[in-house]
Amino acid sequence: MRAAILIFDGLTALDAVGPYEVLRSVPGWEVEFVAKSAGEVRTGDGALGLSADRALDEAGEPEIVLVPGGAGNRALLEDEEVLGWLREVDATTTWTSSVCTGSLVLGAAGLLEGKRATGHWLFLEPLRAYGADPVGGRFVVDGKVITAAGVSAGIDMALHLVGREVGPEVAEAVQLAIEYDPQPPYDAGSPDKAPAAIVAKLTAAAAAKDRQPSRD
Amino acid sequence: MRAAILIFDGLTALDAVGPYEVLRSVPGWEVEFVAKSAGEVRTGDGALGLSADRALDEAGEPEIVLVPGGAGNRALLEDEEVLGWLREVDATTTWTSSVCTGSLVLGAAGLLEGKRATGHWLFLEPLRAYGADPVGGRFVVDGKVITAAGVSAGIDMALHLVGREVGPEVAEAVQLAIEYDPQPPYDAGSPDKAPAAIVAKLTAAAAAKDRQPSRD
Repeated sequence: MRAAILIFDGLTALDAVGPYEVLRSVPGWEVEFVAKSAGEVRTGDGALGLSADRALDEAGEPEIVLVPGGAGNRALLEDEEVLGWLREVDATTTWTSSVCTGSLVLGAAGLLEGKRATGHWLFLEPLRAYGADPVGGRFVVDGKVITAAGVSAGIDMALHLVGREVGPEVAEAVQLAIEYDPQPPYDAGSPDKAPAAIVAKLTAAAAAKDRQPSRD
Repeated sequence: MRAAILIFDGLTALDAVGPYEVLRSVPGWEVEFVAKSAGEVRTGDGALGLSADRALDEAGEPEIVLVPGGAGNRALLEDEEVLGWLREVDATTTWTSSVCTGSLVLGAAGLLEGKRATGHWLFLEPLRAYGADPVGGRFVVDGKVITAAGVSAGIDMALHLVGREVGPEVAEAVQLAIEYDPQPPYDAGSPDKAPAAIVAKLTAAAAAKDRQPSRD
């Protein structure tokens, strides 16, 4: 199974690297990072560069395509080169997937029409504009489209995908290899669980940034 | 607070990117990626390049230093340039930290002498050679040294560190921003929880690779 992860300037690194670490750990699977042009892209804060080894037209026909989030992906919502490529690869993928606000890009490509989908909790409603039915959940599977919630949720999504494709034993071996036995020292990882004041603060910050918070 | 994450060829990307995503999300905090030479390093499987913006001698005096794991870090265990740099920055850090087999590098630098420390479950015993007391646990704090278990554990460790430094409200806001509400679809993330056959398989694979499994 070959996975292509689309990266771009202004991405959120963990959205891409969480699933990468899971998918690459499956024996025989291969992950490639692709971008509009081969070369380095930088994260939203500029602190980290990630290398895309292939341009879109060199990406072939990946069985899995994954679009991460990050404020930088808003530029892709009207980028016909990227949206056209997504439609093209989606025609032959086994799984078309996103993490966080990556679902907005799948939506803009027309790939969420009539589908249940999720994304970062601050950016669920905008999915309606693309004909999607936004729902909560750590990840949401609708046919071959699988969308994950914010940032860290891509790890859970990728493990699910591995289990579906090659069975629970392999997924469990990957989970053990990356010692994914999460023990968050706080319990504020979703708007249902976090203190209301913190939810309100992040919601206001997102609104103030015209839906482009640096952490989305 | 400024954090320097040491990267190198053959690292495990999630070891570095998990904590990066947490630490960078704290208002006013800054993360830099450093390496022996500035430029690109590649992950153990070669699939991803990460950019180090600074060489060690340009890293100044970070308040947090973090060493990730990955089979590639075995080359650092006898690299006096890296070990000397770690000793030097440790003299002024607030926190000296590692994820996964990064604790071996801290050990080789002499920074775990007489300390309780952890790391990837497959690589705890080798810590004894450095005078450390290897213990289990998601992360282990001993004085200003904080070591995390394998790969994904760096996220939990970094959230703890944020809470210690700037209080639980900020840590909770970061947790909510990265939607860290883990819901692993399997429960095999530690050797205590995974099926015995899977634990045995990974243990044998690690031994066969002379303690250099590609997923450590």
